[in-house]
Amino acid sequence: MKKYCFGIDVGGTTVKCGLFTVEGEVLDKWEIKTRTEDNGINILPDVAETINQKIQEKNIEKESVAGIGIGVPGPVNEAGEVPCAVNLHWGYVNIVGDLERLTGLPVKAGNDANVAALGELWKGGGAGYHSLIMVTLGTGVGGGIIINEKIVAGSHGAGGEIGHAHVEDAITDPCNCGNCGCLEQVASATGIVRLAKEALASTEAPSLLRDQEVTAKAVWDAVKEKDAVAIQVAERFGNYLGKTLAVFATVADPQVIVIGGGVSKAGTILLDYVTGPFRKYAFSACRETEFALATLGNDAGIFGAAKMVI
Amino acid sequence: MKKYCFGIDVGGTTVKCGLFTVEGEVLDKWEIKTRTEDNGINILPDVAETINQKIQEKNIEKESVAGIGIGVPGPVNEAGEVPCAVNLHWGYVNIVGDLERLTGLPVKAGNDANVAALGELWKGGGAGYHSLIMVTLGTGVGGGIIINEKIVAGSHGAGGEIGHAHVEDAITDPCNCGNCGCLEQVASATGIVRLAKEALASTEAPSLLRDQEVTAKAVWDAVKEKDAVAIQVAERFGNYLGKTLAVFATVADPQVIVIGGGVSKAGTILLDYVTGPFRKYAFSACRETEFALATLGNDAGIFGAAKMVI
Repeated sequence: MKKYCFGIDVGGTTVKCGLFTVEGEVLDKWEIKTRTEDNGINILPDVAETINQKIQEKNIEKESVAGIGIGVPGPVNEAGEVPCAVNLHWGYVNIVGDLERLTGLPVKAGNDANVAALGELWKGGGAGYHSLIMVTLGTGVGGGIIINEKIVAGSHGAGGEIGHAHVEDAITDPCNCGNCGCLEQVASATGIVRLAKEALASTEAPSLLRDQEVTAKAVWDAVKEKDAVAIQVAERFGNYLGKTLAVFATVADPQVIVIGGGVSKAGTILLDYVTGPFRKYAFSACRETEFALATLGNDAGIFGAAKMVI
Repeated sequence: MKKYCFGIDVGGTTVKCGLFTVEGEVLDKWEIKTRTEDNGINILPDVAETINQKIQEKNIEKESVAGIGIGVPGPVNEAGEVPCAVNLHWGYVNIVGDLERLTGLPVKAGNDANVAALGELWKGGGAGYHSLIMVTLGTGVGGGIIINEKIVAGSHGAGGEIGHAHVEDAITDPCNCGNCGCLEQVASATGIVRLAKEALASTEAPSLLRDQEVTAKAVWDAVKEKDAVAIQVAERFGNYLGKTLAVFATVADPQVIVIGGGVSKAGTILLDYVTGPFRKYAFSACRETEFALATLGNDAGIFGAAKMVI
């Protein structure tokens, strides 16, 4: 009888770890440091060690562990291999093979954004659904697609790379990915700051945003104060994101679209600006697709990782 | 031992039928009329009758038939039900339930464009791959997504509705779907005629297109003759389609993109105009996604339908 599983979320600074029941109850949650030196050669051995320690500490029989799910910041192919993960200083790593050898447990690996999307489907903003698109609005824009409870990893590991959809021909400075005019350049926290600076420069109108450092949070706070310039920024942001999600919905047609990441802390007011353009541009059959805010925050990764092995 | 299966493609005028071996060899191919009168009440009984006749005629043991796959022009949900199929004059029809009852054989049903995409993956332009996006450029623009050999039907039956992605804010006359600025309005046969008329009206330059009825075929024939106006049209067409496919690839990340439908008879020159913008706008990881022309023509539907039950 399998009773337990581990969900591991490897970030550039820390590795988040969770011990779960197979029903999805969190029994323990902890972090270890991500040792990226020496091409990140210690990362998987450190993960194996902390799991083996936890199994001892909790007096868990190894046979009762269903396996280890692990999310990493990089493309993961169907065999559980990573060609390259810049933030971990990794070149090619066979995550599944290496971690199975180190722990003697079954392992499944996925891209961190895709794994977080699976977590939100399982126990977060998408709970109760079986297909979703998740968009994570942080420093960048990440995303994941889940269809019939399975991650769409993509044949080149690019599944769900929503942030790098081309949305604006007029942008001529490059995105981190090298292209110009990506969704990430107008809908991430830094993208919102870009839009705000453009708006402030285009008008002499007074604005709460003139007297402070312009951040995405400051923009949404000003929107809540009915600041006209901030509202104009929110409308442009919502138009870019809503229109792009309408195209995605026309292709993948999920039950629900979940929006998470730091920017989503603005709350439901953010959804208000996105759903209008979405419903304007979406194909009629999917016009009423549900929207929800993510609820698991930084824990989405460990939940989704655990779900992969259940 | 299952040896045979049937692939059925229901159109507004005729029902295409195929008898296949489970390896995908076509043993027989025929058509019957689609009787749309009386709300299409005869369509499924007619299909059942022609299948039962074929089983008798070929002396096939019913136990050796794996099942019947059927594609219809309308949204099909996961239970094999159609809420409404305008071209068949259907309201709600439980295809799977009704056809199983009428034939005593297992049935699977899908949307015709999605089923055709599966056919091209199995035995056509996408053979040898396990994931593809197919775009069908005809009077309209249809599409289908296959991931891991499974149709992405979508939670509202809108999976793969590529033709209704919003691509152009400047178009203010409505698409057949009711929205404005859909891909179908610029990349279908009629969309190419729209672009050609706009191009001809915008310049006094001589063009082969001035002396004849402007059709999509005439445009591509003129492109092959290096007609400057026609080339301008092909470039706009390629930019709309290539850019949109780049967004889709960033989300679904297929191994191959297959282009079919009447417009694709222009041949590889059409791909040349699409792949340039695609590779410019696609996310780096999927920039080298393969392109291919569809090869099964009007038979894609019966192949894909048969594949559903294998």
